[in-house]
Amino acid sequence: MQQRSEETLERLLPAADIAPQRLHQAMRYVALGGGKRIRPLLCHAAGALCQADPAALDRSAAALELIHVYSLVHDDLPCMDDDVLRRGKPTCHVEFDEATALLVGDALQSLAFQVLAEQPPNADTPAAARQLEMLHLLAQAAGSRGMAGGQAIDLAAVDQQLSLAELEFMHIHKTGALIRAAVLLGAACGQPLASADQQRLDHYAKRVGLLFQIVDDILDSEADTATLGKTAGKDAANNKPTYVSLLGLSQAREKAAELRAEAHTTLSHFGDRARRLNELTDYICNRHF
Amino acid sequence: MQQRSEETLERLLPAADIAPQRLHQAMRYVALGGGKRIRPLLCHAAGALCQADPAALDRSAAALELIHVYSLVHDDLPCMDDDVLRRGKPTCHVEFDEATALLVGDALQSLAFQVLAEQPPNADTPAAARQLEMLHLLAQAAGSRGMAGGQAIDLAAVDQQLSLAELEFMHIHKTGALIRAAVLLGAACGQPLASADQQRLDHYAKRVGLLFQIVDDILDSEADTATLGKTAGKDAANNKPTYVSLLGLSQAREKAAELRAEAHTTLSHFGDRARRLNELTDYICNRHF
Repeated sequence: MQQRSEETLERLLPAADIAPQRLHQAMRYVALGGGKRIRPLLCHAAGALCQADPAALDRSAAALELIHVYSLVHDDLPCMDDDVLRRGKPTCHVEFDEATALLVGDALQSLAFQVLAEQPPNADTPAAARQLEMLHLLAQAAGSRGMAGGQAIDLAAVDQQLSLAELEFMHIHKTGALIRAAVLLGAACGQPLASADQQRLDHYAKRVGLLFQIVDDILDSEADTATLGKTAGKDAANNKPTYVSLLGLSQAREKAAELRAEAHTTLSHFGDRARRLNELTDYICNRHF
Repeated sequence: MQQRSEETLERLLPAADIAPQRLHQAMRYVALGGGKRIRPLLCHAAGALCQADPAALDRSAAALELIHVYSLVHDDLPCMDDDVLRRGKPTCHVEFDEATALLVGDALQSLAFQVLAEQPPNADTPAAARQLEMLHLLAQAAGSRGMAGGQAIDLAAVDQQLSLAELEFMHIHKTGALIRAAVLLGAACGQPLASADQQRLDHYAKRVGLLFQIVDDILDSEADTATLGKTAGKDAANNKPTYVSLLGLSQAREKAAELRAEAHTTLSHFGDRARRLNELTDYICNRHF
């Protein structure tokens, strides 16, 4: 499935020999050949729960990953986290230059919405009104009351003592919003859910987003740079609050285990239809990079 | 009509007291209270040609302006043009900080697509399939083969000797794509045009985009900073090719006059329905800031 995401992105990104070549080369450099593709995987797994056609999911999955990659490129810029390593390679502004990295992020965001606004090629894909809803959801998740807002809260949190509730508020925006969107967009590509089931899935999506972040914090505090493919120990070095700095390592691990259990309980209602989401939840919890 | 654009943006931008407050304050700082609103004006004027409901045009006009404003904020950043003055006020990264300006641009872009993906509130607004087409058009105009691509070509052009054809290629992307989108989105909100009329309008849209840029270059070379509300003579100082540096002032003025005449000729077919587009063309040609 990661291979499928890679192939879809490969197909949707402008070719490196189309003008402006350097920009397109840089867009492909950051978007291809790396990454865990968690958001595409969640999108496809939620789609499977709703019997969505995998072909219909490809565009949503790609749009989600494009938004995610743009955020990484901008997050790594000198005026933000000023990082040199991402997905095991030099960051975009190091490999190219700062102005190009800025435009790469900008253009990837546009491309995400372009991809999702593409007319459905056949009747298996969701109808136009549903696709508009999906675009709206993705834009909200990416914007000032979602991911970009979370980055702003993160900036303000440097050197601050946050409460657990404030830390959670930050992460619900910064990573949670897009992960939630991944699950909901996947489901929106399939058979409509009854309202109570939609709420169950939404609850799951929020919990798995938080789980992802806690595991990220644990890995950042434990693993080394080579394993992570990005600079390890960065949050502590930048004096940013994390689940580990607030709770300590063992309590953070406990919280992750609790969230995983809660996610499985929430999904149990769906029976075998949620198999892939269950597997992915375990993968997110047990990953080592 | 400029007042109407201002009111729509005022309504669509998140309130300054919603978290993250500083980000929302900065978004409102850059988007409200300034600007010529050329793209919203073009959108409404093209809508008038197609008998569009002005209420249906408001969202498209706002989305176009949000994309434009985001591009100004990023263009002013130190890694791009490093400018301190915009619309008569300190630029976003000067008034706030660089990281905030980066996020303001990112969040404004998301908001543009969110606004345009809003479900039509009544049957007067274009149907969902048409709205998807409009989203696709806006995303293309903003992305790597439109505005962001034009910025990348512009970066590469510093200290380069461009031919007139290369300069035109740059501007077709950098400013032309979004101005063209303004005209086409406005028309898409109204009664569908016959194919030949659609092509006429598209031709007009491309010419008026070029006209806008040539007049911009002339003003940049002639006016002072106080009149422009942005740093004057910047292109020459940055050793960037312009129509004035390539053609000289009097030939640039001649080209502007020719483009205006061609725009009017193209619109003449539409008779009185094009009155507002004709007036706007003259305004774009004769503006002094």
